[in-house]
Amino acid sequence: MQTWRIQVMAELAITFLGTGTSQGVPFVACDCPVCRSDDPRDKRLRSSILVEAEDVTILVDTTPDLRTQALRQNLRRLDAVIFTHSHTDHVAGFDDLRRFCELADRPMPVYASPHTMADLRRAFYYAFDGQHAYRNYVRPEPHEVTAPFRLGSVEIIPAEVPHGKMLVYGYIFARHGRKLAAYFSDCHHVPPDVIAQILGIPVLIIDALRHEPHPSHLSLQEALDVAAAASAQRAYLTHIGHDLGHEETGKLLPPHIRLAHDGLRLEI
Amino acid sequence: MQTWRIQVMAELAITFLGTGTSQGVPFVACDCPVCRSDDPRDKRLRSSILVEAEDVTILVDTTPDLRTQALRQNLRRLDAVIFTHSHTDHVAGFDDLRRFCELADRPMPVYASPHTMADLRRAFYYAFDGQHAYRNYVRPEPHEVTAPFRLGSVEIIPAEVPHGKMLVYGYIFARHGRKLAAYFSDCHHVPPDVIAQILGIPVLIIDALRHEPHPSHLSLQEALDVAAAASAQRAYLTHIGHDLGHEETGKLLPPHIRLAHDGLRLEI
Repeated sequence: MQTWRIQVMAELAITFLGTGTSQGVPFVACDCPVCRSDDPRDKRLRSSILVEAEDVTILVDTTPDLRTQALRQNLRRLDAVIFTHSHTDHVAGFDDLRRFCELADRPMPVYASPHTMADLRRAFYYAFDGQHAYRNYVRPEPHEVTAPFRLGSVEIIPAEVPHGKMLVYGYIFARHGRKLAAYFSDCHHVPPDVIAQILGIPVLIIDALRHEPHPSHLSLQEALDVAAAASAQRAYLTHIGHDLGHEETGKLLPPHIRLAHDGLRLEI
Repeated sequence: MQTWRIQVMAELAITFLGTGTSQGVPFVACDCPVCRSDDPRDKRLRSSILVEAEDVTILVDTTPDLRTQALRQNLRRLDAVIFTHSHTDHVAGFDDLRRFCELADRPMPVYASPHTMADLRRAFYYAFDGQHAYRNYVRPEPHEVTAPFRLGSVEIIPAEVPHGKMLVYGYIFARHGRKLAAYFSDCHHVPPDVIAQILGIPVLIIDALRHEPHPSHLSLQEALDVAAAASAQRAYLTHIGHDLGHEETGKLLPPHIRLAHDGLRLEI
Protein backbone atom coordinates (compact mmCIF):
# COMPACT_ATOMS: atom_id res chain seq x y z
CA MET A 1 0.00 0.00 0.00
CA GLN A 2 1.32 3.35 -0.97
CA THR A 3 1.25 6.20 1.48
CA TRP A 4 0.54 9.57 0.01
CA ARG A 5 2.08 12.45 1.74
CA ILE A 6 1.52 16.07 0.91
CA GLN A 7 4.56 17.93 2.03
CA VAL A 8 3.75 21.50 2.93
CA MET A 9 6.91 23.55 2.96
CA ALA A 10 6.84 26.53 5.25
CA GLU A 11 6.89 29.82 3.43
CA LEU A 12 8.77 31.42 6.24
CA ALA A 13 10.30 30.24 9.51
CA ILE A 14 10.81 32.55 12.46
CA THR A 15 12.97 31.57 15.41
CA PHE A 16 12.97 33.61 18.60
CA LEU A 17 16.62 34.16 19.55
CA GLY A 18 15.57 36.17 22.56
CA THR A 19 12.27 37.31 24.07
CA GLY A 20 13.42 39.42 27.00
CA THR A 21 13.32 43.05 27.87
CA SER A 22 16.49 45.18 27.89
CA GLN A 23 17.71 43.50 31.06
CA GLY A 24 16.76 39.99 29.96
CA VAL A 25 15.12 37.61 32.41
CA PRO A 26 16.24 36.84 35.05
CA PHE A 27 17.23 40.32 36.10
CA VAL A 28 20.62 40.44 37.77
CA ALA A 29 20.30 40.07 41.55
CA CYS A 30 16.52 39.67 41.49
CA ASP A 31 14.77 37.13 43.70
CA CYS A 32 11.26 37.43 42.27
CA PRO A 33 9.46 34.18 41.38
CA VAL A 34 9.94 34.61 37.63
CA CYS A 35 13.66 35.45 37.97
CA ARG A 36 14.08 32.38 40.21
CA SER A 37 11.90 30.13 38.06
CA ASP A 38 13.30 26.81 36.86
CA ASP A 39 11.11 26.90 33.74
CA PRO A 40 13.52 27.33 30.80
CA ARG A 41 10.82 29.40 29.08
CA ASP A 42 11.36 32.02 31.80
CA LYS A 43 15.00 32.45 30.72
CA ARG A 44 14.91 35.29 28.24
CA LEU A 45 17.85 36.77 26.39
CA ARG A 46 17.43 40.15 24.75
CA SER A 47 14.80 40.26 21.97
CA SER A 48 15.79 39.22 18.48
CA ILE A 49 14.41 36.94 15.77
CA LEU A 50 15.85 34.95 12.90
CA VAL A 51 13.76 34.97 9.73
CA GLU A 52 14.38 32.17 7.24
CA ALA A 53 13.04 31.43 3.81
CA GLU A 54 14.42 28.71 1.59
CA ASP A 55 16.78 31.18 -0.07
CA VAL A 56 17.69 33.63 2.68
CA THR A 57 18.49 33.90 6.41
CA ILE A 58 17.88 37.27 8.03
CA LEU A 59 18.72 38.41 11.56
CA VAL A 60 16.60 41.12 13.16
CA ASP A 61 18.73 43.14 15.63
CA THR A 62 22.10 42.34 17.19
CA THR A 63 21.54 42.04 20.93
CA PRO A 64 24.36 41.92 23.47
CA ASP A 65 23.56 38.21 23.59
CA LEU A 66 24.17 37.64 19.87
CA ARG A 67 27.15 35.33 20.30
CA THR A 68 25.27 33.21 22.84
CA GLN A 69 22.18 33.17 20.62
CA ALA A 70 24.19 32.18 17.55
CA LEU A 71 25.91 29.34 19.41
CA ARG A 72 22.62 28.13 20.87
CA GLN A 73 21.01 27.94 17.42
CA ASN A 74 24.18 26.66 15.76
CA LEU A 75 23.85 29.57 13.37
CA ARG A 76 26.33 29.31 10.54
CA ARG A 77 25.14 31.78 7.96
CA LEU A 78 23.52 35.19 7.88
CA ASP A 79 22.63 36.85 4.62
CA ALA A 80 21.61 40.18 6.10
CA VAL A 81 20.78 41.98 9.32
CA ILE A 82 17.91 44.41 9.77
CA PHE A 83 17.53 46.73 12.73
CA THR A 84 14.37 47.91 14.44
CA HIS A 85 16.12 50.75 16.31
CA SER A 86 19.35 51.64 18.03
CA HIS A 87 18.66 51.07 21.70
CA THR A 88 21.56 49.23 23.27
CA ASP A 89 19.68 45.98 23.85
CA HIS A 90 19.11 45.79 20.09
CA VAL A 91 22.55 46.77 18.78
CA ALA A 92 25.26 45.97 21.37
CA GLY A 93 26.16 42.66 19.69
CA PHE A 94 26.94 44.36 16.38
CA ASP A 95 30.63 43.48 16.57
CA ASP A 96 29.77 39.78 16.77
CA LEU A 97 28.68 39.98 13.14
CA ARG A 98 32.41 39.74 12.44
CA ARG A 99 32.27 35.99 12.56
CA PHE A 100 29.60 35.88 9.86
CA CYS A 101 31.67 38.22 7.70
CA GLU A 102 34.61 35.89 8.17
CA LEU A 103 32.62 32.73 7.43
CA ALA A 104 31.16 34.14 4.21
CA ASP A 105 34.28 36.20 3.40
CA ARG A 106 32.22 39.22 2.48
CA PRO A 107 30.72 42.33 4.05
CA MET A 108 27.40 41.92 5.87
CA PRO A 109 24.42 43.77 4.38
CA VAL A 110 22.94 45.83 7.18
CA TYR A 111 19.52 47.49 6.89
CA ALA A 112 18.30 50.25 9.18
CA SER A 113 16.47 53.55 9.18
CA PRO A 114 18.70 56.57 8.50
CA HIS A 115 18.49 57.51 12.20
CA THR A 116 19.40 54.02 13.39
CA MET A 117 22.21 53.77 10.84
CA ALA A 118 23.65 57.06 12.09
CA ASP A 119 23.65 55.66 15.63
CA LEU A 120 25.34 52.47 14.46
CA ARG A 121 27.97 54.52 12.64
CA ARG A 122 28.67 56.52 15.80
CA ALA A 123 28.81 53.58 18.21
CA PHE A 124 30.70 51.26 15.86
CA TYR A 125 32.64 53.85 13.86
CA TYR A 126 35.60 51.49 13.41
CA ALA A 127 33.41 49.10 11.44
CA PHE A 128 32.23 51.76 9.02
CA ASP A 129 35.39 53.80 8.49
CA GLY A 130 36.86 51.42 5.92
CA GLN A 131 40.20 51.31 7.71
CA HIS A 132 39.65 47.95 9.39
CA ALA A 133 38.43 45.83 6.48
CA TYR A 134 40.15 42.67 7.66
CA ARG A 135 38.65 39.31 6.85
CA ASN A 136 37.66 38.58 10.44
CA TYR A 137 36.51 42.08 11.40
CA VAL A 138 32.94 43.24 11.15
CA ARG A 139 32.46 44.78 7.72
CA PRO A 140 28.97 46.26 7.34
CA GLU A 141 27.49 47.04 3.95
CA PRO A 142 25.01 49.76 5.00
CA HIS A 143 21.58 50.13 3.40
CA GLU A 144 19.32 52.88 4.68
CA VAL A 145 15.70 51.76 4.78
CA THR A 146 12.94 54.23 3.95
CA ALA A 147 10.66 51.98 1.90
CA PRO A 148 9.91 48.29 1.38
CA PHE A 149 12.83 46.24 0.09
CA ARG A 150 13.59 42.66 -0.84
CA LEU A 151 16.12 40.14 0.43
CA GLY A 152 15.95 37.17 -1.90
CA SER A 153 12.34 36.07 -2.06
CA VAL A 154 11.36 37.93 1.10
CA GLU A 155 9.76 41.34 0.91
CA ILE A 156 10.35 43.47 3.99
CA ILE A 157 8.03 46.36 4.72
CA PRO A 158 9.10 48.81 7.43
CA ALA A 159 6.34 50.34 9.55
CA GLU A 160 6.97 53.16 12.00
CA VAL A 161 5.65 52.74 15.51
CA PRO A 162 6.12 55.00 18.55
CA HIS A 163 8.51 53.77 21.23
CA GLY A 164 8.73 56.36 24.00
CA LYS A 165 9.79 59.59 22.36
CA MET A 166 11.16 57.82 19.29
CA LEU A 167 9.71 56.35 16.17
CA VAL A 168 11.17 52.90 15.52
CA TYR A 169 10.66 50.32 12.83
CA GLY A 170 8.51 47.29 13.02
CA TYR A 171 8.81 45.01 10.01
CA ILE A 172 6.25 43.12 7.95
CA PHE A 173 7.56 40.06 6.11
CA ALA A 174 5.89 38.93 2.89
CA ARG A 175 6.57 36.36 0.19
CA HIS A 176 4.98 36.09 -3.23
CA GLY A 177 2.83 39.11 -2.46
CA ARG A 178 1.38 37.62 0.73
CA LYS A 179 2.06 39.17 4.12
CA LEU A 180 3.05 36.39 6.49
CA ALA A 181 4.33 37.93 9.70
CA ALA A 182 4.85 41.24 11.43
CA TYR A 183 7.43 41.99 14.13
CA PHE A 184 6.90 44.91 16.51
CA SER A 185 9.33 44.32 19.34
CA ASP A 186 9.35 47.79 20.87
CA CYS A 187 6.37 50.11 20.82
CA HIS A 188 3.82 51.62 23.18
CA HIS A 189 1.19 52.06 20.46
CA VAL A 190 0.43 50.78 16.98
CA PRO A 191 -1.16 53.56 14.92
CA PRO A 192 -4.27 52.88 12.81
CA ASP A 193 -2.39 53.13 9.50
CA VAL A 194 -0.05 50.37 10.66
CA ILE A 195 -2.98 48.26 11.92
CA ALA A 196 -4.48 48.67 8.45
CA GLN A 197 -1.30 47.26 6.90
CA ILE A 198 -1.37 44.08 8.99
CA LEU A 199 -5.09 43.27 9.01
CA GLY A 200 -5.56 39.50 9.14
CA ILE A 201 -1.81 38.82 9.32
CA PRO A 202 -1.06 35.12 9.94
CA VAL A 203 1.50 35.87 12.66
CA LEU A 204 1.85 39.05 14.70
CA ILE A 205 4.82 39.27 17.06
CA ILE A 206 4.27 42.10 19.47
CA ASP A 207 5.82 43.84 22.49
CA ALA A 208 4.22 42.93 25.84
CA LEU A 209 6.48 44.13 28.62
CA ARG A 210 4.34 43.60 31.70
CA HIS A 211 0.85 44.01 33.13
CA GLU A 212 1.21 47.68 34.03
CA PRO A 213 1.26 50.35 31.31
CA HIS A 214 4.70 51.73 30.41
CA PRO A 215 5.60 54.90 28.49
CA SER A 216 7.69 53.03 25.88
CA HIS A 217 6.18 49.55 25.71
CA LEU A 218 2.82 47.89 25.34
CA SER A 219 1.32 46.23 28.38
CA LEU A 220 -0.08 42.72 28.06
CA GLN A 221 -3.65 44.02 27.68
CA GLU A 222 -2.57 46.64 25.15
CA ALA A 223 -0.80 43.96 23.14
CA LEU A 224 -3.97 41.85 23.15
CA ASP A 225 -5.91 44.88 21.98
CA VAL A 226 -3.51 45.40 19.07
CA ALA A 227 -3.79 41.74 18.10
CA ALA A 228 -7.59 42.04 18.16
CA ALA A 229 -7.61 45.31 16.21
CA ALA A 230 -5.38 43.71 13.56
CA SER A 231 -7.42 40.49 13.52
CA ALA A 232 -4.14 38.62 13.76
CA GLN A 233 -4.64 34.91 13.11
CA ARG A 234 -1.98 34.14 15.70
CA ALA A 235 0.00 36.46 17.95
CA TYR A 236 3.18 35.89 19.94
CA LEU A 237 4.20 38.22 22.73
CA THR A 238 7.84 39.23 23.12
CA HIS A 239 10.16 41.74 24.85
CA ILE A 240 8.85 40.37 28.11
CA GLY A 241 9.93 41.54 31.55
CA HIS A 242 10.09 39.63 34.81
CA ASP A 243 6.49 40.38 35.75
CA LEU A 244 5.16 37.83 33.29
CA GLY A 245 5.90 34.21 34.15
CA HIS A 246 5.49 31.96 31.13
CA GLU A 247 3.23 29.35 32.65
CA GLU A 248 0.83 31.52 34.63
CA THR A 249 0.61 34.28 32.04
CA GLY A 250 -0.19 31.69 29.38
CA LYS A 251 -3.35 30.78 31.31
CA LEU A 252 -4.63 34.34 30.88
CA LEU A 253 -4.38 34.28 27.09
CA PRO A 254 -6.81 33.18 24.40
CA PRO A 255 -5.65 30.10 22.47
CA HIS A 256 -4.43 31.99 19.41
CA ILE A 257 -2.18 34.26 21.48
CA ARG A 258 0.94 32.88 23.19
CA LEU A 259 3.93 34.18 25.03
CA ALA A 260 6.96 33.51 22.88
CA HIS A 261 10.01 31.92 24.47
CA ASP A 262 13.66 31.73 23.51
CA GLY A 263 14.23 29.07 20.87
CA LEU A 264 10.58 28.88 19.78
CA ARG A 265 10.39 28.29 16.03
CA LEU A 266 7.32 29.21 14.01
CA GLU A 267 6.67 27.87 10.54
CA ILE A 268 4.28 29.95 8.51
CA MET B 1 42.92 18.97 73.03
CA GLN B 2 42.70 22.42 71.66
CA THR B 3 43.25 23.06 68.00
CA TRP B 4 45.00 26.25 67.13
CA ARG B 5 44.10 27.72 63.84
CA ILE B 6 45.67 30.77 62.29
CA GLN B 7 43.11 32.29 59.97
CA VAL B 8 44.73 34.08 57.07
CA MET B 9 42.27 36.43 55.42
CA ALA B 10 42.89 37.11 51.78
CA GLU B 11 44.07 40.64 51.09
CA LEU B 12 42.44 40.58 47.68
CA ALA B 13 40.26 38.15 45.75
CA ILE B 14 40.18 38.09 41.97
CA THR B 15 37.49 36.20 40.07
CA PHE B 16 37.77 35.63 36.34
CA LEU B 17 34.39 36.56 34.84
CA GLY B 18 35.67 35.74 31.37
CA THR B 19 38.96 34.58 29.89
CA GLY B 20 38.20 34.56 26.18
CA THR B 21 39.33 36.58 23.22
CA SER B 22 37.01 39.05 21.50
CA GLN B 23 34.95 36.23 19.98
CA GLY B 24 34.88 34.16 23.15
CA VAL B 25 35.39 30.41 22.97
CA PRO B 26 33.81 28.55 21.31
CA PHE B 27 33.84 30.66 18.19
CA VAL B 28 30.47 30.73 16.44
CA ALA B 29 30.24 27.99 13.81
CA CYS B 30 33.67 26.56 14.56
CA ASP B 31 34.27 22.81 14.68
CA CYS B 32 37.84 22.82 15.98
CA PRO B 33 38.62 20.53 18.94
CA VAL B 34 38.74 23.36 21.49
CA CYS B 35 35.46 24.88 20.26
CA ARG B 36 33.84 21.45 20.44
CA SER B 37 35.44 20.54 23.76
CA ASP B 38 33.22 19.36 26.61
CA ASP B 39 35.67 20.72 29.19
CA PRO B 40 33.88 23.63 30.90
CA ARG B 41 37.27 25.36 31.22
CA ASP B 42 37.27 25.66 27.42
CA LYS B 43 34.09 27.79 27.55
CA ARG B 44 35.37 31.34 27.67
CA LEU B 45 33.26 34.46 27.82
CA ARG B 46 34.90 37.76 26.97
CA SER B 47 37.74 38.78 29.34
CA SER B 48 36.88 40.56 32.56
CA ILE B 49 37.77 40.23 36.24
CA LEU B 50 36.14 41.09 39.52
CA VAL B 51 38.47 42.45 42.19
CA GLU B 52 37.28 42.23 45.77
CA ALA B 53 38.71 43.46 49.04
CA GLU B 54 36.81 43.38 52.28
CA ASP B 55 35.55 46.91 51.72
CA VAL B 56 35.14 47.19 47.96
CA THR B 57 34.05 45.27 44.85
CA ILE B 58 35.49 46.45 41.54
CA LEU B 59 34.66 45.28 38.04
CA VAL B 60 37.32 45.53 35.34
CA ASP B 61 35.66 46.06 31.92
CA THR B 62 32.06 45.56 30.83
CA THR B 63 32.07 42.81 28.24
CA PRO B 64 29.07 42.01 26.03
CA ASP B 65 28.65 39.04 28.38
CA LEU B 66 28.34 41.19 31.51
CA ARG B 67 24.75 40.21 32.29
CA THR B 68 25.57 36.51 31.91
CA GLN B 69 28.71 36.92 34.00
CA ALA B 70 26.87 38.80 36.74
CA LEU B 71 24.16 36.14 36.91
CA ARG B 72 26.70 33.33 36.95
CA GLN B 73 28.55 34.88 39.89
CA ASN B 74 25.35 36.01 41.61
CA LEU B 75 26.87 39.48 41.63
CA ARG B 76 24.76 41.87 43.68
CA ARG B 77 26.95 44.87 44.22
CA LEU B 78 29.55 46.82 42.32
CA ASP B 79 31.29 49.78 43.88
CA ALA B 80 33.13 50.89 40.75
CA VAL B 81 34.10 49.87 37.24
CA ILE B 82 37.51 50.42 35.70
CA PHE B 83 38.27 50.07 32.02
CA THR B 84 41.41 48.83 30.32
CA HIS B 85 40.44 50.21 26.89
CA SER B 86 37.47 50.77 24.63
CA HIS B 87 37.53 47.81 22.27
CA THR B 88 34.03 46.43 21.89
CA ASP B 89 34.72 43.17 23.71
CA HIS B 90 35.63 45.24 26.79
CA VAL B 91 32.84 47.83 26.76
CA ALA B 92 29.73 46.48 24.98
CA GLY B 93 28.03 45.48 28.25
CA PHE B 94 28.22 49.02 29.61
CA ASP B 95 24.45 49.43 29.60
CA ASP B 96 24.07 46.42 31.89
CA LEU B 97 25.59 48.52 34.66
CA ARG B 98 22.08 49.95 34.91
CA ARG B 99 21.02 47.17 37.20
CA PHE B 100 23.80 47.96 39.66
CA CYS B 101 22.85 51.65 39.59
CA GLU B 102 19.29 50.61 40.36
CA LEU B 103 20.26 48.23 43.16
CA ALA B 104 22.45 50.81 44.90
CA ASP B 105 20.25 53.74 43.86
CA ARG B 106 23.25 55.83 42.89
CA PRO B 107 25.46 56.57 39.91
CA MET B 108 28.24 54.09 39.14
CA PRO B 109 31.80 55.40 39.49
CA VAL B 110 33.53 54.64 36.18
CA TYR B 111 37.30 54.94 35.78
CA ALA B 112 39.06 55.04 32.41
CA SER B 113 41.81 56.83 30.54
CA PRO B 114 40.74 60.09 28.88
CA HIS B 115 40.79 58.34 25.49
CA THR B 116 38.71 55.40 26.68
CA MET B 117 36.27 57.71 28.46
CA ALA B 118 35.82 59.70 25.25
CA ASP B 119 34.97 56.47 23.42
CA LEU B 120 32.50 55.49 26.14
CA ARG B 121 30.89 58.91 25.93
CA ARG B 122 30.48 58.54 22.18
CA ALA B 123 29.15 54.98 22.17
CA PHE B 124 26.89 55.41 25.23
CA TYR B 125 26.13 59.13 24.89
CA TYR B 126 22.66 58.67 26.37
CA ALA B 127 24.19 57.53 29.65
CA PHE B 128 26.42 60.58 29.95
CA ASP B 129 24.13 63.34 28.69
CA GLY B 130 22.31 63.75 32.00
CA GLN B 131 18.91 63.58 30.31
CA HIS B 132 18.18 59.97 31.22
CA ALA B 133 18.99 59.93 34.93
CA TYR B 134 16.24 57.47 35.82
CA ARG B 135 16.71 55.14 38.74
CA ASN B 136 16.99 52.03 36.57
CA TYR B 137 19.07 53.56 33.76
CA VAL B 138 22.82 53.43 33.63
CA ARG B 139 24.17 56.53 35.34
CA PRO B 140 27.96 56.72 35.11
CA GLU B 141 29.98 58.96 37.37
CA PRO B 142 33.05 59.43 35.16
CA HIS B 143 36.60 59.64 36.54
CA GLU B 144 39.45 60.09 34.08
CA VAL B 145 42.49 58.11 35.13
CA THR B 146 45.96 59.51 34.53
CA ALA B 147 47.63 58.49 37.79
CA PRO B 148 47.24 55.97 40.60
CA PHE B 149 44.00 56.25 42.55
CA ARG B 150 42.26 54.53 45.44
CA LEU B 151 38.95 52.73 45.76
CA GLY B 152 38.45 52.06 49.44
CA SER B 153 41.52 50.24 50.69
CA VAL B 154 42.66 49.25 47.20
CA GLU B 155 45.26 51.30 45.37
CA ILE B 156 45.01 51.04 41.61
CA ILE B 157 48.02 51.90 39.49
CA PRO B 158 47.47 52.25 35.74
CA ALA B 159 50.31 51.14 33.47
CA GLU B 160 50.32 51.77 29.74
CA VAL B 161 51.03 48.85 27.46
CA PRO B 162 50.95 48.69 23.66
CA HIS B 163 47.99 46.84 22.10
CA GLY B 164 48.26 47.00 18.33
CA LYS B 165 48.47 50.66 17.41
CA MET B 166 46.98 51.78 20.73
CA LEU B 167 48.25 52.26 24.22
CA VAL B 168 45.88 50.68 26.72
CA TYR B 169 45.86 50.40 30.49
CA GLY B 170 46.89 47.45 32.49
CA TYR B 171 46.25 47.84 36.21
CA ILE B 172 48.30 47.00 39.27
CA PHE B 173 46.32 46.41 42.47
CA ALA B 174 47.90 47.12 45.84
CA ARG B 175 46.79 47.23 49.45
CA HIS B 176 48.58 48.70 52.42
CA GLY B 177 51.46 49.69 50.18
CA ARG B 178 52.01 46.16 48.84
CA LYS B 179 51.46 45.32 45.19
CA LEU B 180 49.37 42.15 45.02
CA ALA B 181 48.28 41.61 41.44
CA ALA B 182 48.64 43.02 37.95
CA TYR B 183 46.13 42.65 35.11
CA PHE B 184 47.28 43.06 31.51
CA SER B 185 44.47 41.60 29.42
CA ASP B 186 45.37 43.10 26.05
CA CYS B 187 48.92 43.85 24.96
CA HIS B 188 51.53 42.63 22.50
CA HIS B 189 54.44 43.85 24.62
CA VAL B 190 55.15 44.89 28.19
CA PRO B 191 57.77 47.67 28.20
CA PRO B 192 60.74 47.56 30.61
CA ASP B 193 59.41 50.41 32.77
CA VAL B 194 56.21 48.44 33.35
CA ILE B 195 58.15 45.25 34.04
CA ALA B 196 60.09 47.26 36.62
CA GLN B 197 56.84 48.24 38.32
CA ILE B 198 55.68 44.65 38.75
CA LEU B 199 58.93 42.89 39.68
CA GLY B 200 58.17 40.00 42.01
CA ILE B 201 54.40 40.58 41.86
CA PRO B 202 52.47 37.80 43.65
CA VAL B 203 49.97 37.40 40.80
CA LEU B 204 50.40 38.46 37.19
CA ILE B 205 47.40 38.07 34.89
CA ILE B 206 48.54 38.37 31.31
CA ASP B 207 47.27 38.18 27.73
CA ALA B 208 48.11 34.90 25.93
CA LEU B 209 46.04 34.70 22.77
CA ARG B 210 47.53 31.71 21.00
CA HIS B 211 50.78 30.00 20.06
CA GLU B 212 51.49 32.16 16.99
CA PRO B 213 52.59 35.78 17.38
CA HIS B 214 49.89 38.41 16.82
CA PRO B 215 50.25 42.15 16.16
CA SER B 216 47.99 43.12 19.09
CA HIS B 217 48.35 40.29 21.60
CA LEU B 218 51.03 38.29 23.33
CA SER B 219 51.58 34.73 22.24
CA LEU B 220 51.84 32.01 24.87
CA GLN B 221 55.64 32.06 24.74
CA GLU B 222 55.76 35.85 24.89
CA ALA B 223 53.47 35.78 27.93
CA LEU B 224 55.79 33.29 29.63
CA ASP B 225 58.71 35.57 28.83
CA VAL B 226 56.93 38.53 30.44
CA ALA B 227 56.17 36.45 33.54
CA ALA B 228 59.84 35.46 33.75
CA ALA B 229 61.11 39.00 33.18
CA ALA B 230 58.81 40.24 35.95
CA SER B 231 59.73 37.34 38.25
CA ALA B 232 56.02 36.90 38.88
CA GLN B 233 55.40 34.53 41.77
CA ARG B 234 52.36 33.16 39.97
CA ALA B 235 50.97 33.99 36.54
CA TYR B 236 47.56 33.34 35.02
CA LEU B 237 47.00 33.54 31.28
CA THR B 238 43.84 35.14 29.92
CA HIS B 239 42.25 36.55 26.73
CA ILE B 240 42.69 33.11 25.27
CA GLY B 241 41.63 32.10 21.76
CA HIS B 242 40.50 28.74 20.45
CA ASP B 243 44.02 27.53 19.67
CA LEU B 244 44.76 26.88 23.33
CA GLY B 245 42.82 24.00 24.87
CA HIS B 246 42.86 24.19 28.65
CA GLU B 247 44.01 20.66 29.41
CA GLU B 248 46.71 20.19 26.80
CA THR B 249 48.08 23.73 27.06
CA GLY B 250 48.33 23.33 30.83
CA LYS B 251 50.78 20.46 30.29
CA LEU B 252 53.17 22.84 28.53
CA LEU B 253 53.35 25.28 31.44
CA PRO B 254 55.60 25.45 34.49
CA PRO B 255 53.74 24.86 37.76
CA HIS B 256 53.55 28.53 38.77
CA ILE B 257 51.92 29.53 35.49
CA ARG B 258 48.35 28.43 34.70
CA LEU B 259 45.73 29.13 32.12
CA ALA B 260 42.91 30.97 33.82
CA HIS B 261 39.36 29.78 33.25
CA ASP B 262 35.97 31.40 33.69
CA GLY B 263 34.89 31.35 37.31
CA LEU B 264 38.39 30.79 38.71
CA ARG B 265 38.83 32.68 41.97
CA LEU B 266 42.23 33.64 43.29
CA GLU B 267 42.83 34.68 46.87
CA ILE B 268 45.98 36.70 47.38
